[in-house]
Amino acid sequence: MSDAYSPERLKATHDGIKWAATGPGVIPAWVADMDLAAAPAVVEALRRRAEGDLGYPTWLDTPSCGPLAEAFAERMARRFGWDPDPSYVRSYSDINQALQVLLHVWTRPGDGVALHTPAYHPFLKTLSDMERPLRPIRLEPDGDSWRFEVPDLSGCRVLLLVNPQNPTGRAFTRAELEELAEHAERHDLLVIADEIHADLVYEPHRHVPFATILPGRTVTLTSATKAFNLGGIRCSVAHVGHPELRKALEAQPPFLYGSAGLFGVEATVAAWRHGDAWLQETTALLDRNRRTLAERLPSRFGYRVPQATYLAWLHTGVPGMAATIEQDAKVLLSDGAVFGPGGEEYVRLNFATTEGVLAEILDRLSRLP
Amino acid sequence: MSDAYSPERLKATHDGIKWAATGPGVIPAWVADMDLAAAPAVVEALRRRAEGDLGYPTWLDTPSCGPLAEAFAERMARRFGWDPDPSYVRSYSDINQALQVLLHVWTRPGDGVALHTPAYHPFLKTLSDMERPLRPIRLEPDGDSWRFEVPDLSGCRVLLLVNPQNPTGRAFTRAELEELAEHAERHDLLVIADEIHADLVYEPHRHVPFATILPGRTVTLTSATKAFNLGGIRCSVAHVGHPELRKALEAQPPFLYGSAGLFGVEATVAAWRHGDAWLQETTALLDRNRRTLAERLPSRFGYRVPQATYLAWLHTGVPGMAATIEQDAKVLLSDGAVFGPGGEEYVRLNFATTEGVLAEILDRLSRLP
Ligand SMILES: Cc1ncc(COP(=O)(O)O)c(C=O)c1O
Ligand SMILES: Cc1ncc(COP(=O)(O)O)c(C=O)c1O
Repeated sequence: MSDAYSPERLKATHDGIKWAATGPGVIPAWVADMDLAAAPAVVEALRRRAEGDLGYPTWLDTPSCGPLAEAFAERMARRFGWDPDPSYVRSYSDINQALQVLLHVWTRPGDGVALHTPAYHPFLKTLSDMERPLRPIRLEPDGDSWRFEVPDLSGCRVLLLVNPQNPTGRAFTRAELEELAEHAERHDLLVIADEIHADLVYEPHRHVPFATILPGRTVTLTSATKAFNLGGIRCSVAHVGHPELRKALEAQPPFLYGSAGLFGVEATVAAWRHGDAWLQETTALLDRNRRTLAERLPSRFGYRVPQATYLAWLHTGVPGMAATIEQDAKVLLSDGAVFGPGGEEYVRLNFATTEGVLAEILDRLSRLP
Repeated sequence: MSDAYSPERLKATHDGIKWAATGPGVIPAWVADMDLAAAPAVVEALRRRAEGDLGYPTWLDTPSCGPLAEAFAERMARRFGWDPDPSYVRSYSDINQALQVLLHVWTRPGDGVALHTPAYHPFLKTLSDMERPLRPIRLEPDGDSWRFEVPDLSGCRVLLLVNPQNPTGRAFTRAELEELAEHAERHDLLVIADEIHADLVYEPHRHVPFATILPGRTVTLTSATKAFNLGGIRCSVAHVGHPELRKALEAQPPFLYGSAGLFGVEATVAAWRHGDAWLQETTALLDRNRRTLAERLPSRFGYRVPQATYLAWLHTGVPGMAATIEQDAKVLLSDGAVFGPGGEEYVRLNFATTEGVLAEILDRLSRLP
């Protein structure tokens, strides 16, 4: 095994929001940023760019940003057997921007949006800010996993499908996706598929791109920022399979939503084309960590081993436990209440750290009064 | 004098659009990108960031991007005696995006936009794409400079003021700006002041921020990308002095227009806070170059020495001369026709290069048949 995750391979500096908002002596295990240094291939590409031409790149005025769309299409084909059309790709600064643009262009206030709950909280805020009522598809505990029943989706115009799911870590099966696809067809829904965690699925689970099931209704959103730990670079892609939506986007002023920067594109392309050795080591570490949690988490935490992501969604049975845990155990977790209906009695733990730090987190949690 | 502009201080690599679109043996002097390497302080900040934390920065979800707004406000105060309010700052990926957002939020198709012509061509395209009719304020040759008379601005909702002006290189005087301000008040105009070239004004001319004249009507747009040669980083600022427009922007979905990346902010802040030694050497070089053109340009080119910018707007008396010059002299200039009404008989030459390259350009132009 490589030494990539010895303590020295932690980020050299931690000046992001995950650490800044953390009190003295507290271990932050909340914001979804890994404690680990980025892939050498990415750092090298960024360093080379810093020393190279910082002027207008050749792809500047093209919505697909040349190498970005191509690297995306190659990766989807290689990893998931899906052949996207690079000409359907547009770039955005981040997934939440892309979501807001799609809702702005395709829907109106009052149009319902179906979404599995508990949910990635910035999306809940987007729906409420934009007055698109949430139609929750509730995830319910089911043995060591989670299941859902699709409610009546009349009045919805969009299915916002987050797969793999945050915070439960479900990787939906083909059968589940096919059921969702039936509902999407029945109610004539646009499907916005946020697949940002697709590279973080553990064996024997598999990521199935929704665009392979319902290509003409689906916009796929993704970026390298989650699997490759690049939250600050602001570069994501939308593959717009829906023909009328493509037309609606083309009818917008061409630069209204901004354009990707040199460094975001450089980092993403390097990650997708040259980052897989690092990714493999990283997912091996994350896989060990999710199992370590199963062995060592105190029994007061109800834990279903996630099938994907580096997030553990822990049942505490008590609302507001994150504040107690921060104070008494000096570990900062995310409070489940922000993830919407059904989250109150949960906390979310980010286990994208070294084995040493995770052991310390577990020690602290086991000493909770 | 420093050796900063010896040929070795050209960019190490040229892979931007300025070079890519240039035929073999042709010297590119068109796209507004300097041939020079970026400021060492900027390169160093980018390199440090490449090796540091690439996760979510602390300022991520704030429209003013923390250090960006502060560095902007400090710089305006230090260089131009203007005290902007950092809380009025919002970041955009680039100036043209900011312009499209402002027009989208504040105006409707059919609303007129006053703009000096000839004009920076992407803005002409924005107005026509967005169906905001252009009300030209024509710049006319006037001795060794340019003057304008303001036409009736009824039917306009916006004055889009590009100062310093591209392509003529005018730095408007306080008297001229005050006259424009009167028209803005009379017709209740929003003033969008693109002051991206403010750092490239030559003695004895002075840059006067329009916001010091009409603070409550003005949005100031700027970035470090022009003076510091960072066209690829995609980071600009808008200082929104107009209170109702601020409210209108706050009512938009908060991430609809994207958010700035780590590297764009890092480069801009480094340039504004630590780039002035480089900038001083660069403007000294550009100043020498604009005078060299006055001495050595063949007399077939009518040349008014620009007061600002690194752009020479040359009268040829013949339409379509850029193509002829590219073919016969192997120098690629911008064709004046794209700058709108009045530009047909002009070409634009970018002189942001070393003295050696400029000498070669001049040799080639003087051998034109
Ligand atoms: C489901 C999901 N989507 C998207 C993101 C990232 O969003 P953005 O690209 O807007 O930062 C995250 C980050 O944790 C996420 O969990
Ligand atoms: C007048 C003017 N505004 C803005 C820009 C830059 O625009 P953007 O930031 O959209 O690339 C330029 C570049 O040459 C310019 O000349």
